[in-house]
Amino acid sequence: MVNTLFLPELREMLAENNRAELEEFCVTLNPGRTAEFMEGLSNDEAWQVLQFAEADRRAEIFSYFEEDRQLELLELQSAKQVAKLVEEIPPDDRIDLIQQLGDERVAEIMPLLPIEDRRNIQRLGCYEDESAGGLMTTDVAMLTESLTVRQALDELAKQASDLETIYYLYVVDNDRSLRGIVSTRQLISSLNHPERTLGEMMESDVVVALVTEDQESVAEKVERYNLLAIPVVDSRHKLLGIITHDDVIDVLREEYTEDAQRIAAVAPLEENYLQIALFTLSWKRGLWLTILFFAAILTAVALEHYHQETEKYGWLVAFIPLIISAGGNSGSQSATLVITAMTSGQLALKDWRTVMRREVIVSLMLGGFLALIGFIVATLLAPSLYASLVIPLTLLAVIMVGCFFGALLPMMFQRLGLDPAMMSNPFVAGIVDILGIVIYINIARLMLG
Amino acid sequence: MVNTLFLPELREMLAENNRAELEEFCVTLNPGRTAEFMEGLSNDEAWQVLQFAEADRRAEIFSYFEEDRQLELLELQSAKQVAKLVEEIPPDDRIDLIQQLGDERVAEIMPLLPIEDRRNIQRLGCYEDESAGGLMTTDVAMLTESLTVRQALDELAKQASDLETIYYLYVVDNDRSLRGIVSTRQLISSLNHPERTLGEMMESDVVVALVTEDQESVAEKVERYNLLAIPVVDSRHKLLGIITHDDVIDVLREEYTEDAQRIAAVAPLEENYLQIALFTLSWKRGLWLTILFFAAILTAVALEHYHQETEKYGWLVAFIPLIISAGGNSGSQSATLVITAMTSGQLALKDWRTVMRREVIVSLMLGGFLALIGFIVATLLAPSLYASLVIPLTLLAVIMVGCFFGALLPMMFQRLGLDPAMMSNPFVAGIVDILGIVIYINIARLMLG
Repeated sequence: MVNTLFLPELREMLAENNRAELEEFCVTLNPGRTAEFMEGLSNDEAWQVLQFAEADRRAEIFSYFEEDRQLELLELQSAKQVAKLVEEIPPDDRIDLIQQLGDERVAEIMPLLPIEDRRNIQRLGCYEDESAGGLMTTDVAMLTESLTVRQALDELAKQASDLETIYYLYVVDNDRSLRGIVSTRQLISSLNHPERTLGEMMESDVVVALVTEDQESVAEKVERYNLLAIPVVDSRHKLLGIITHDDVIDVLREEYTEDAQRIAAVAPLEENYLQIALFTLSWKRGLWLTILFFAAILTAVALEHYHQETEKYGWLVAFIPLIISAGGNSGSQSATLVITAMTSGQLALKDWRTVMRREVIVSLMLGGFLALIGFIVATLLAPSLYASLVIPLTLLAVIMVGCFFGALLPMMFQRLGLDPAMMSNPFVAGIVDILGIVIYINIARLMLG
Repeated sequence: MVNTLFLPELREMLAENNRAELEEFCVTLNPGRTAEFMEGLSNDEAWQVLQFAEADRRAEIFSYFEEDRQLELLELQSAKQVAKLVEEIPPDDRIDLIQQLGDERVAEIMPLLPIEDRRNIQRLGCYEDESAGGLMTTDVAMLTESLTVRQALDELAKQASDLETIYYLYVVDNDRSLRGIVSTRQLISSLNHPERTLGEMMESDVVVALVTEDQESVAEKVERYNLLAIPVVDSRHKLLGIITHDDVIDVLREEYTEDAQRIAAVAPLEENYLQIALFTLSWKRGLWLTILFFAAILTAVALEHYHQETEKYGWLVAFIPLIISAGGNSGSQSATLVITAMTSGQLALKDWRTVMRREVIVSLMLGGFLALIGFIVATLLAPSLYASLVIPLTLLAVIMVGCFFGALLPMMFQRLGLDPAMMSNPFVAGIVDILGIVIYINIARLMLG
């Protein structure tokens, strides 16, 4: 949904080089909305409009462009202007962009940046993408313990426009080791005690992220403690940067998408679905599809093993897909419920008895109901009423097996330190398919002789 | 993982009624961590410890308890102490708790609350749970346009300790109609212009949520515009409250969990997996399981229709599960990829041609590879090399059908205004199962005569 409301006006302003109006356009709206209004412009036009914004505003509007456009602009516009923009982009977003630019382009831009930005880029480039270091920004309000409320506020006023977040002040000693934090809210409510020092006010029990910590664990901390930002420290507790709440939301989105993909037996894409190379996509899907395929081959072998029975009782064949899919679907329901309950912290491994007990009861209800429907259908296809009983009995057993393994396996994998979202689906499918066939034919054998 | 580090000390302090140490325990740590250290205590012990914290700190520590414990404490402790606590809980969390308490208990507590809190509870109780109104808190910093930076800061200093978030100031007129916002960061960076007014500084293009707006749409706005909080207004733009970033994270988690459940064909639970009534759980699972079951019955009918073929070529039977699961798995991969790409905004409906083109190519690669494996296995079971060609040809066709419908249906449902996460799985499974059988038998017929 491209917003085209402003497009003709914008193009006209550009054609007339109407400085006053273009400057106003860049200033009055929320920068996110300014970017939306520019969506319909070509890259060159958008770049021209950006030049009418002040440097920090320009970077802010730019940050709301789609990533593709951001990269195209950085690749293709004049290196000098690009460098001026890059200087203003917050360090955490900047490093993500630079890592996606071509090496030649980076080599062109880097010499045009101030020395401290260059160093910053080099430093941040060393951290793993999915670690706290890869997420953090280095623009932090660092202050010393001895500052008073009044002094801290003045200091903050100086720094505020350069910092991404000023909602926590980080108190550090001379080695930049983190001593404590003071929230801006505390600072402001202490305005009537202007002589109190940060050292007196600060909370010294600070929740921190280690620079090498996995982003998922960082996001959990931010969520659990309702933080606006979390400080990132090295192993010697030196403050390196902070991770802000908006980056945490991005991480959560990423992790959830990956989980959903894993549950459907796709290795997480790590790239945009529309942009990922088709060969990579096929590989990420093919890996698990092949594993599932081998599980299904075992089912074929099992069925072949029982070919005497399937030939003798030909009418049983029609129900094979029904039985397999009933087991598979109830199994994947159980697995998904257990996986999402574990992910969202509703379920711990110690609850496994409760889970299994509940799943058995639920599977009896579900299995009983579907068995009833299955029985009615079977009477229409089976040679006798007695023979048709094979179907409901098999369905009940297979659905119980599905729920049982569907619930058990994710907890088992979790216990073994494996990723339940990734591993459960193929294993549940494989086990339930084969057991389904074995149960089916053996019930038929027992009853029909 | 209950943290038992402090438990013996805590119990000792309680036994000795050691006021000084207990007060210190409630103050020095981050409230989230204080709550964690209390996890091993009984409800009564935890409640005793809480009484040593100051009123607002008590509410803060309490907010980090698990929901079960929160409710038990509110149900069972002295009504007077409970009322004192309830008074301090932020309005949005408070209403959620009160709605879960027994009616009798609520009737006991309500008269003990100050009149404005009672009114607030009644008002917030009217909004839908999953709407902006159901999420918002009413503690907002509302100020008038004419205030100067200096005055605004003084006003904020007075209010700061009562407010959940002070990171945006909302500028309203006499009717509490929202005129604009000023961030605390802007305010602080303007400290050297103490005479500027909020009216001069404010951004009047404010991103707002309508009080009746769905929580998912609210969360998207907060995410898109990187907000710390979003103001909630009624249809006449009157400011009713705000929704803060931590509630948005909760909404995202909820929505993602529901999506994952829908993809696995479970109606969203809306309750904790371990606590939901087993009958409700069976219903939420049984609904879609039954729909999938009826789809599978159609497959049984189709197979029965072809019973001459399955009897004539008995060896074909062994491959039925293999073929159905290959189609089903590739279909659910495609569906999940398209659903998650749409949810995370990577994919818009207008891209459908690209999606379909890419899916066809990927399905050729995946299908080709699995067909090759299938062919090798088939040569072992089929009566001739020629006959065994039925299997790879069927696999290739079925996997293409799976990917095609798996990708198409979620986009179709989205286009029709239906929930793709909910609808796609059953339909893809149903279509692919039946088409799989039809394709299989017809290829066999054509080739084997």
